[in-house]
Amino acid sequence: MRGELSWQKDKKLVEAITSMDVDFAQWYTDVVKKAELIDYSSVKGCMVIKPAGYAIWENIQNELDRRFKETGVQNVYMPMFIPESLLEKEKDHVEGFAPEVAWVTMGGLEPLQERMCVRPTSETLFCDFYARDIQSYRDLPRLYNQWCSVVRWEKTTRPFLRSREFLWQEGHTAHATAEQAEERTELMLNLYADFCEEVLAMPVVRGKKTDKEKFAGAEATYTIEALMHDGKALQSGTSHNFGDGFAKAFEIQYLDKDNQLKYVHQTSWGMTTRLIGAIIMVHGDDNGLVLPPRIAPVQVMIVPIQQNKEGVLDKAYELKEVLSGFKVKVDDSDKSPGWKFSESEMRGIPVRVEIGPRDLAENQAVLVRRDTHEKITVSLDEINEKVAELLGTIQHDMLERAKAHREAHTYEAVNMEEMKELADHKPGFIKAMWCGCQECEDQLKESVGVTSRCMPFAQETLSDKCVCCGKPATKMVYWGKAY
Amino acid sequence: MRGELSWQKDKKLVEAITSMDVDFAQWYTDVVKKAELIDYSSVKGCMVIKPAGYAIWENIQNELDRRFKETGVQNVYMPMFIPESLLEKEKDHVEGFAPEVAWVTMGGLEPLQERMCVRPTSETLFCDFYARDIQSYRDLPRLYNQWCSVVRWEKTTRPFLRSREFLWQEGHTAHATAEQAEERTELMLNLYADFCEEVLAMPVVRGKKTDKEKFAGAEATYTIEALMHDGKALQSGTSHNFGDGFAKAFEIQYLDKDNQLKYVHQTSWGMTTRLIGAIIMVHGDDNGLVLPPRIAPVQVMIVPIQQNKEGVLDKAYELKEVLSGFKVKVDDSDKSPGWKFSESEMRGIPVRVEIGPRDLAENQAVLVRRDTHEKITVSLDEINEKVAELLGTIQHDMLERAKAHREAHTYEAVNMEEMKELADHKPGFIKAMWCGCQECEDQLKESVGVTSRCMPFAQETLSDKCVCCGKPATKMVYWGKAY
Repeated sequence: MRGELSWQKDKKLVEAITSMDVDFAQWYTDVVKKAELIDYSSVKGCMVIKPAGYAIWENIQNELDRRFKETGVQNVYMPMFIPESLLEKEKDHVEGFAPEVAWVTMGGLEPLQERMCVRPTSETLFCDFYARDIQSYRDLPRLYNQWCSVVRWEKTTRPFLRSREFLWQEGHTAHATAEQAEERTELMLNLYADFCEEVLAMPVVRGKKTDKEKFAGAEATYTIEALMHDGKALQSGTSHNFGDGFAKAFEIQYLDKDNQLKYVHQTSWGMTTRLIGAIIMVHGDDNGLVLPPRIAPVQVMIVPIQQNKEGVLDKAYELKEVLSGFKVKVDDSDKSPGWKFSESEMRGIPVRVEIGPRDLAENQAVLVRRDTHEKITVSLDEINEKVAELLGTIQHDMLERAKAHREAHTYEAVNMEEMKELADHKPGFIKAMWCGCQECEDQLKESVGVTSRCMPFAQETLSDKCVCCGKPATKMVYWGKAY
Repeated sequence: MRGELSWQKDKKLVEAITSMDVDFAQWYTDVVKKAELIDYSSVKGCMVIKPAGYAIWENIQNELDRRFKETGVQNVYMPMFIPESLLEKEKDHVEGFAPEVAWVTMGGLEPLQERMCVRPTSETLFCDFYARDIQSYRDLPRLYNQWCSVVRWEKTTRPFLRSREFLWQEGHTAHATAEQAEERTELMLNLYADFCEEVLAMPVVRGKKTDKEKFAGAEATYTIEALMHDGKALQSGTSHNFGDGFAKAFEIQYLDKDNQLKYVHQTSWGMTTRLIGAIIMVHGDDNGLVLPPRIAPVQVMIVPIQQNKEGVLDKAYELKEVLSGFKVKVDDSDKSPGWKFSESEMRGIPVRVEIGPRDLAENQAVLVRRDTHEKITVSLDEINEKVAELLGTIQHDMLERAKAHREAHTYEAVNMEEMKELADHKPGFIKAMWCGCQECEDQLKESVGVTSRCMPFAQETLSDKCVCCGKPATKMVYWGKAY
């Protein structure tokens, strides 16, 4: 065993965060602050995303953007303002969003003739544009996306999960037929789900929202739902099929090959900085953030031990070159190794490399996994291969652990007693049958405190009766408490 | 010579744009529309940036972001709103911006207690953040940047050049000493200038703004000024040294090694979507946009001739694979070759590859330069090397041509008669000596119609007297009409 006191983890930094079992909400807040992901700002309900947080978002952006473009998507940029008359063009949509937008009423020193909201989402802007842009079947499909920020005037806010301004991407497509729109809606939902599982190591349930929970103005909303460590669900990405509802409201028509004017069919789909909240709550532990290697801004932190001893720092820099195929840093600050260990753990860096005088003498280094704290001594001759292998193992294991957690916290209920018992005592997903009527949904919310998360694509038959009213069931639904 | 009529350029598309010599402003507007860079929107003064325009911006972003990060810059994200009391904290700054901001006065259904503007720039937000974030000399320097959109309530707008909302990056740094702030200010200005010359093939004059023209709240503003084809100047990037003015207004202090509390010294620097306007006006011609290869979203367009003849399309796709090291596309639409030529030229694609049945037979293809229209027949065996060489040549030649144009349109004046004669009849930069007082600047604007563009780093002595008042000159200044 390594005996130096300075090699121990520094307790002060760790003790600065609340244990997740004591108070999960406080643990979350502590992690976002201590891992330096965000700072609060003087603008109520809005946050400052600091470098460590923004770098995660950049990685999410790069990977999603690449996947979007592979399916033919092109990026554009729409204005951030929506004149009130434009927002009002689609009835369901304006009802959904008007109560929670910020209104600009003055431009410079003069009142505006028509007030404008800051976009809460840009369906109306894209529709207004498509009405001019699309003339012929040759113009279809239009597969546009934008990366931007949007504003929703929330009353209670939490970093990444619910803030008045957040960053996202919103894709908006227009198609010749209903089938093509449906195909795109599902394609993007599956792209989102694959991204979450492959890159974020976060398993998701893929399914359809009930009418009550669908997006304002959509014919159908598909969703991916992830389970957080505390057993609450988090909606992690949505994909909407609008049919021709917006097209009719905005007169978006094209001249088809048969010389007939037809309405387009539209979709939209989005993912947000909320995903960073999901990463924290799926993978984090009492030492802080735990980042999956594929999304980590720093994958390997090299910590020199007794760095003032001859050759140690030089070897650390040399290792950085050897490991330059990864995102690697050397912590050569004048902090103690123990403090550096804690900081590296707090920030969720997947692998720590410890290298000290004894290691130098034995031509070795110690790799420490962030997710399991396991230590592995490796020869410096094969450190590159070992780190590559370890990062792959960590990525794999993190997904498997998150899956196991979800399986262990997914329950079934066939009547209201079971439902209530589970909701009160077993945080997690509850699978239960449903008749399809909104009254039962309302009652489950009121008396049990759960909402329908989704009707999963992978349906099962748990019983033939609705868990609430006992009438014939039409769908198996995931229920839960949600962020 | 190739004889087929369909090989000729299609006149219809070209005739759709006004000649730049007839009406430069209209030519510009025609190009942004016909090259499909933007569309107007229902939001007055705001534009829709279409895929062809946004892809140029993405390339600018990628290249600048890489260069920023090489100098240690990290990206962050600040709220888009600024509470009025925050905007008012620095006196000069609020005077400069308050008349041109958009005000949010309602959140949801309720009036705000304090109105907020949509950021016109984010000095005040960064300062508010730094006041909390910076404690010790260990926290310095802070080298933060953000990519976002900003809003300035302009009365008259033009796509890319002046719009109510535009995209940009804004870097905001904090340093321990005045020297370090000055060093960063100059570093970023030179980074901008190098980027313009190396990537955009756009020569710029590097210099300092006069007090009258500097940024609201800055001690010094450095600028790069480019000359457009019509002889007007375009400010293409600025870098500001704030000294400790903002630090004092916002109480941004750090505890130094000597245990003294000291104010930080700050800088900010920005580049915007305006650069796309500059690219258009420096390189464009009467056939449309001309893009430098290093910034072009599509560098090579392969146009099959008589594409229904056996083997032609297959060879076109094969060539695409051969040329896959470049950004390459095949135009396999059912339009005529002539139409495709015009479209490819309108969009500014640097190299067109024509391949038809006769070329197939002779194992050759024809490369056509967008910038000179020169045609070069090359063997298919060496097309990859030839295209690489040609793209390099085009990039080089475009910069040289733009330099030659600027040299040919840079004049000198030593008295007001010469100044007026040049300003009235010779569009371009006018170099002239200046005493340093704002009265002369005001008078030059009023009676000659020019503004000071910058005091170039590369000073010359043209005379020892101010061109306006005849008093002793202190600086040589570039004067001009500007966008």
